[in-house]
Amino acid sequence: MKSSQRIEFSSDYNEGAHPRLIQKLVETNMAQTFGYGLDPYCDEAVEIIRDLCGNRDVDVHFVVGGTLTNLISVAACLRAHEGVISPTNGHIHILETGSIEATGHKILLIQGENGKITASQIDREYEEYCNSDARVHLVHPKLVYITHPTEYGTLYTKAELKAISDVCKKRGLYLFVDGARLGYGMTAKGSDFDIKFLTECCDIFYIGGAKQGALFGEAIVVKNKNIADGFRQLIKQRGGLMSKGRLLGMQFSELFRDGLYFDIAKHANEMADLIRTCLKNAGIRFFVENTTNLLFPIFPDDMFHKLSEKYSLTNFSRWNESSSVIRIATSWATTEQNVNALIHDIEEAAKQFGAQLAKVA
Amino acid sequence: MKSSQRIEFSSDYNEGAHPRLIQKLVETNMAQTFGYGLDPYCDEAVEIIRDLCGNRDVDVHFVVGGTLTNLISVAACLRAHEGVISPTNGHIHILETGSIEATGHKILLIQGENGKITASQIDREYEEYCNSDARVHLVHPKLVYITHPTEYGTLYTKAELKAISDVCKKRGLYLFVDGARLGYGMTAKGSDFDIKFLTECCDIFYIGGAKQGALFGEAIVVKNKNIADGFRQLIKQRGGLMSKGRLLGMQFSELFRDGLYFDIAKHANEMADLIRTCLKNAGIRFFVENTTNLLFPIFPDDMFHKLSEKYSLTNFSRWNESSSVIRIATSWATTEQNVNALIHDIEEAAKQFGAQLAKVA
Amino acid sequence: MKSSQRIEFSSDYNEGAHPRLIQKLVETNMAQTFGYGLDPYCDEAVEIIRDLCGNRDVDVHFVVGGTLTNLISVAACLRAHEGVISPTNGHIHILETGSIEATGHKILLIQGENGKITASQIDREYEEYCNSDARVHLVHPKLVYITHPTEYGTLYTKAELKAISDVCKKRGLYLFVDGARLGYGMTAKGSDFDIKFLTECCDIFYIGGAKQGALFGEAIVVKNKNIADGFRQLIKQRGGLMSKGRLLGMQFSELFRDGLYFDIAKHANEMADLIRTCLKNAGIRFFVENTTNLLFPIFPDDMFHKLSEKYSLTNFSRWNESSSVIRIATSWATTEQNVNALIHDIEEAAKQFGAQLAKVA
Amino acid sequence: MKSSQRIEFSSDYNEGAHPRLIQKLVETNMAQTFGYGLDPYCDEAVEIIRDLCGNRDVDVHFVVGGTLTNLISVAACLRAHEGVISPTNGHIHILETGSIEATGHKILLIQGENGKITASQIDREYEEYCNSDARVHLVHPKLVYITHPTEYGTLYTKAELKAISDVCKKRGLYLFVDGARLGYGMTAKGSDFDIKFLTECCDIFYIGGAKQGALFGEAIVVKNKNIADGFRQLIKQRGGLMSKGRLLGMQFSELFRDGLYFDIAKHANEMADLIRTCLKNAGIRFFVENTTNLLFPIFPDDMFHKLSEKYSLTNFSRWNESSSVIRIATSWATTEQNVNALIHDIEEAAKQFGAQLAKVA
Repeated sequence: MKSSQRIEFSSDYNEGAHPRLIQKLVETNMAQTFGYGLDPYCDEAVEIIRDLCGNRDVDVHFVVGGTLTNLISVAACLRAHEGVISPTNGHIHILETGSIEATGHKILLIQGENGKITASQIDREYEEYCNSDARVHLVHPKLVYITHPTEYGTLYTKAELKAISDVCKKRGLYLFVDGARLGYGMTAKGSDFDIKFLTECCDIFYIGGAKQGALFGEAIVVKNKNIADGFRQLIKQRGGLMSKGRLLGMQFSELFRDGLYFDIAKHANEMADLIRTCLKNAGIRFFVENTTNLLFPIFPDDMFHKLSEKYSLTNFSRWNESSSVIRIATSWATTEQNVNALIHDIEEAAKQFGAQLAKVA
Repeated sequence: MKSSQRIEFSSDYNEGAHPRLIQKLVETNMAQTFGYGLDPYCDEAVEIIRDLCGNRDVDVHFVVGGTLTNLISVAACLRAHEGVISPTNGHIHILETGSIEATGHKILLIQGENGKITASQIDREYEEYCNSDARVHLVHPKLVYITHPTEYGTLYTKAELKAISDVCKKRGLYLFVDGARLGYGMTAKGSDFDIKFLTECCDIFYIGGAKQGALFGEAIVVKNKNIADGFRQLIKQRGGLMSKGRLLGMQFSELFRDGLYFDIAKHANEMADLIRTCLKNAGIRFFVENTTNLLFPIFPDDMFHKLSEKYSLTNFSRWNESSSVIRIATSWATTEQNVNALIHDIEEAAKQFGAQLAKVA
Repeated sequence: MKSSQRIEFSSDYNEGAHPRLIQKLVETNMAQTFGYGLDPYCDEAVEIIRDLCGNRDVDVHFVVGGTLTNLISVAACLRAHEGVISPTNGHIHILETGSIEATGHKILLIQGENGKITASQIDREYEEYCNSDARVHLVHPKLVYITHPTEYGTLYTKAELKAISDVCKKRGLYLFVDGARLGYGMTAKGSDFDIKFLTECCDIFYIGGAKQGALFGEAIVVKNKNIADGFRQLIKQRGGLMSKGRLLGMQFSELFRDGLYFDIAKHANEMADLIRTCLKNAGIRFFVENTTNLLFPIFPDDMFHKLSEKYSLTNFSRWNESSSVIRIATSWATTEQNVNALIHDIEEAAKQFGAQLAKVA
Repeated sequence: MKSSQRIEFSSDYNEGAHPRLIQKLVETNMAQTFGYGLDPYCDEAVEIIRDLCGNRDVDVHFVVGGTLTNLISVAACLRAHEGVISPTNGHIHILETGSIEATGHKILLIQGENGKITASQIDREYEEYCNSDARVHLVHPKLVYITHPTEYGTLYTKAELKAISDVCKKRGLYLFVDGARLGYGMTAKGSDFDIKFLTECCDIFYIGGAKQGALFGEAIVVKNKNIADGFRQLIKQRGGLMSKGRLLGMQFSELFRDGLYFDIAKHANEMADLIRTCLKNAGIRFFVENTTNLLFPIFPDDMFHKLSEKYSLTNFSRWNESSSVIRIATSWATTEQNVNALIHDIEEAAKQFGAQLAKVA
């Protein structure tokens, strides 16, 4: 069954899993293990991830999806009267169908720039809530949620992350980093910190699998012991504990064996770089600049429709009356052949729609 | 890596998936599809299940796990002041870490017999809540939750299910059947209805995958249009919508191709029958009698410990000071060779611990 | 015990209740009635309010406070995946400590102008949510929440309210009007509809008591039968059902006897008019113009501090580096003597701080 | 308006407030204060209650009703995966419309005897949850809820309360005592501890007002600092923070001035004693024996109907096919004249229905 006529650049989860993970699933299929993550595959994956974090004392849990991971993590951090600070374009705010509110908590928004928020914004937000005369009428900010890389594919620098971590410590806030695309961030040009440093800065974060070579699955790292207690029960309560939990352990073990996770993320970033260079050479404007696997060029609508005949791209948002922000995603599965085809067709389209392109800026 | 020294009879989710499903995953791994269940594999599985239900008008949704399926289904059915009726040993009450209460709803318990409740019990419960002077102080019963087969492996008869369905209609109650092990029930001796009849009786039910040959996944069938609205959004909100949703469609398509789902359930029941006969011949008492893949013999503790050296069995509950209810589970993956070994060892143990066995009754 | 040295203009709930209500409480104190609102006082108040609404078919419930009233009303209207549309300055969003989110629902914001939103904004918001490709990732808008008068004391016109009601009907949205200060709105200059018309337009609304002469209490009018079912149980569940519910019925009966409710609101508006005229004559700019009992002049900080020596006023928000938006509230209890004193002192202050006042604009 | 033809013995909240509280309300009605409990009346009441507790370090909050008080207190104590232990007849379980579940938490039931549970039962319950193989599938017990006096009017002894408190400390459980009728308990025959001792034993408890002379209102005492943080915000979030909060402070100040609270409770207990003696002399069996203001005699149905012509009594539960458990309540407002009338009529009825009374036992 051919599921799509067009070549997929619409997202980084259009294929199954990296062949090595599939191979592992096949080999171990008939092994008998206990369920719910109490199996040797999960045990192995936990140890590997503790090493990656440079911290043998963190708890590691595997959950089947990103929305579950976010809502469980937020619920673990907050008491009933507390809320979570998020950038205005935070995934928990805009694309998770009110999942955080459904756990009972309010999201307190900070206007991001290129998807990022700053330590001083967080500090000011805290002040405004906690030093207000109206304090009793306001929720208490207790948790900061950021994404790395952000929804716009941008990166926090080491200094920025450290500053955010410091203000969180000063204000008694927990810091939670959504790493749904962490590998793409860690291997991008300009990335200046590793998972060890991330672990030092966060109270809790997660390493995404589904968008980086796994069939599904996210690995939550819980460092702060105040959050850690009862975490497995909370995962079960919200439906995130797989009966055949070994499927998660198996995939993460394999992803981190021989650096596969980083290799395939690097590949995706390199494929994106090729497209990025082509777009720049063609004089195409970007909604936001970044160095990771998501590209946000602005295309005239006619150019988008032309390219869409052959490629599946995401129409991200309106730019003006005749053009839109387009999202192009690469992944571990993106082939150089498909990238070359896209580049060729972008170049052609840029010529064809040159007059309209000129009007974008 | 050998994950277990002992032969597994502790549950029906100790292995991966049926080889045909694994084969399908391998073959389709590099296909590109849109995410979130909007793919041809899911489309195909939906059509197959509609045929099974004998109702082209039902909605079918795929969710990654049983607890999620239960909590989403209950949340879809209830307004804030409403509660769900369940047998005292209902899975949602005893083994899901308060997931229903975490969605805001109270479980109203009816004492089951062999895991089953009756139409007249439901009718009486409704009366007690709704005709009480204290009504405003009580939640409104709006949904009935039962399991088929039950947690004890017992079956509702066609007449019993019809009676329950009728009382639900009379009282304005929704009926939700948890079919985590539905296949084992449909193919067991004494089963006298099919999925078409189940569809006629229920407002919503689900067909379990994880315990019957799939890696994971449950298929929810929503018949009542009052519940259907917004169901996909609710699945997403609670974190049950897989990004690579095709994995669910693919598995269910394959499970229902050529009757695989029923064949493997039948196999498990037959394996259980062999063990059941052996237990009966050995004069061993059962906590509950049934015809499906879960057996509940009562073993003297010494006999349990002896058998546990070689087999992984579940110590289900205490029976008296020197014996326990044991749960033995078979599955699609259970081999006749392992069953024969177990039978042989039960016979030996029954001789060895004959004096203690005599004291159980 | 003298509770405040300064004359109160900071809010409309600084005193107890109108003397006629106190008198009623005293007279009926030893009467014996059944609890939970099942008493003749509540029965009478329900009938009076049905007459006011021009609709004998509405349900009327009494709840002890505004936040409870809002959260119960929203919870009654929404299924789990649904959200409530509100102006950006909606009371439920900014001053109720996340109460709506604590019931599990997301608030979908529309930027208001002078605290009001329009029918076409609601229509567009609905479109954006429901016709989006990302729909499954978004909550479903099902309820519109507005306040009349608004938090800024402004009023919807009959035509505006009708247009909002029409778009709600077109889109299948419920309309909920928060009438915490409804009396002030109904009796203000420029008000062009009555409670009968409001009843026609809304699915649910409430008539505030605490800010308009009662010790406490709000009267919820539920017109839409889809919402009505189980409402009393929901009130009890959220803790809003008073054991001595007669206290609510008694107060509302008395408030609506001989038009007291409207007379005292009119008085408050007249007192506000006197202050408004004074402020205008003194050339003082307003943050927002209105005709009800809340005034929002912009004062230089020095002028605010000077007046604050004698009067309790609310510092509502910063305007610029040297001035703030001030809120002055009148109520049923505001005396002409105190108003005259305030007017005199505003006039003096306006002269004293004339140079700074000139810089506000 | 005469609200009831019959003399009320059905509950302890059929009248308004003690005349001294009404007098206080009248006197202070026009005083101007800030809202939300930030007023001198509340300040005074807090200080008085701290003295009563023998602990100047406790937080005291006033909330408008008992269900709100219970749900707020439970929500303050529990993280998402945690549950509350309660006797099977706990008010939060049987008469609050699922309010605890609506906050997201499961109630873990212990079978009470005469409405009481024991330290060793709590200890065993904790063991069963926390040492279970199935722990991840179970909520974590974190809070114990008991009522003093219980729903059956019975009392914990000092030794029993101390033992419960000790097991809570050993197991890391919070102890919450619902004192909706605390005064009746403290002044009953056989009561052997005071509020100071209660404060030592609990993490949080409340002193009921509505059933003991106030119009409404409960005073929550929070001793444990882990719970205290953000409590006022939580009260506001759930709608329990009165705008005219002074009404609560005023009533509690007056209730505890000159020991009024205890005097009126003592009176109610004495009135109950008179009825109790009469019932015993008439050879009437009790469903449960106690020394407080709630009596639970078992009446033949005919005798109940006869007495109900003149008196309002509560039909509490069926006893057998021809008799019921009846609840008779006295209060601060119960007059000796009415008690004497009731006694006379019980004596007459006992003679008339003597044959049926003999069949009860």
